[in-house]
Amino acid sequence: MHQMSSDMRSCIEECLRCYGACLGMAMNHCLEAGGKHTEPAHFRIMMACAEICRTSAHFMLLGSPHHKHMCRECAEICEECAKSCEALGDMQECVEACRRCAESCRRMAA
Amino acid sequence: MHQMSSDMRSCIEECLRCYGACLGMAMNHCLEAGGKHTEPAHFRIMMACAEICRTSAHFMLLGSPHHKHMCRECAEICEECAKSCEALGDMQECVEACRRCAESCRRMAA
Amino acid sequence: MHQMSSDMRSCIEECLRCYGACLGMAMNHCLEAGGKHTEPAHFRIMMACAEICRTSAHFMLLGSPHHKHMCRECAEICEECAKSCEALGDMQECVEACRRCAESCRRMAA
Amino acid sequence: MHQMSSDMRSCIEECLRCYGACLGMAMNHCLEAGGKHTEPAHFRIMMACAEICRTSAHFMLLGSPHHKHMCRECAEICEECAKSCEALGDMQECVEACRRCAESCRRMAA
Repeated sequence: MHQMSSDMRSCIEECLRCYGACLGMAMNHCLEAGGKHTEPAHFRIMMACAEICRTSAHFMLLGSPHHKHMCRECAEICEECAKSCEALGDMQECVEACRRCAESCRRMAA
Repeated sequence: MHQMSSDMRSCIEECLRCYGACLGMAMNHCLEAGGKHTEPAHFRIMMACAEICRTSAHFMLLGSPHHKHMCRECAEICEECAKSCEALGDMQECVEACRRCAESCRRMAA
Repeated sequence: MHQMSSDMRSCIEECLRCYGACLGMAMNHCLEAGGKHTEPAHFRIMMACAEICRTSAHFMLLGSPHHKHMCRECAEICEECAKSCEALGDMQECVEACRRCAESCRRMAA
Repeated sequence: MHQMSSDMRSCIEECLRCYGACLGMAMNHCLEAGGKHTEPAHFRIMMACAEICRTSAHFMLLGSPHHKHMCRECAEICEECAKSCEALGDMQECVEACRRCAESCRRMAA
């Protein structure tokens, strides 16, 4: 990651960590727990969060100036995912990853 | 693609077609031609366009209401990519795929 | 998709169609139906099938000679997904997309 | 990443780090350097390596037993990418990320 600002490096890391937390929790913890954990609205926001995090990291790695728009959207989706996970309970790893990623993305989007 | 509007089905198709055109042209035509075709600004907008198209289709398939924001961004990046390809010449397949995708995404974003 | 064989063009199309069918059915039909449709083994093979199809198309578009290995794996996962969908019933769109994609990928892998 | 072995957690991390190194170096260092850095064979193996690393991590996060096949292919592509980067020189970050990822993927594939 050649000549990249340390803020961007750290935002890429937060995005990839949040991608891993959301996809990993959805496909393991949520699928196995069932019930409220696989209700469409909750499961969808987790999958959408995983995808926007993956894509925001990708845009920063591409060196595209559009990464700012992706990071702004990422911060918004992460906040929504954190709330959905907090309301369910038992998803603390995901809540924390989403909050950290949202904060980092807001800085990149500014 | 269960119970999806025909507008959304068609937008997913345009996004995946544009993803294929941009990635395929960049990694084959542009890389082999070199020169202006691998100048960072041009190559980056093509890769960014491929990625946002792939992701917009993904959001529509996920059934996430955030697809509207992705489609709005997708329309913008597609227009920019179409202009970059038009200025270079010899990229008509990509120009057309980008223009059609932009139009379809603008309708989804509305 | 510059100077690409018609077999490869058609395999990319089948892969992207199967990606759309699997992801769209999993995230809409299966999530909403619940019960057997969200049992971990079934849901996981659908998500794995969506991802390998997306990636196989990507490797062909990259012009990478490793696309043969991805297509071989894709054919295998598609067959497994078709069986899982057939056993459940009510998933005919997905069964057909998987079978067609598997056949096309086997040809590319040969 | 619920109830995941520490070997798998660490392989996911190596895959995502290698994805970032390959995509970031290709789209910034290589594109800006030009010449041998944008020769199709080199640029393609870097993009293929980024994609297989991204996908292998995805399969492990999905909890799919097919992750073993993806990791085996990932190890192979990483080795090839490391060699291509080593031959060019000036790509040490990428060489190291590829070698570490290959080693970790070989363990997962066993």
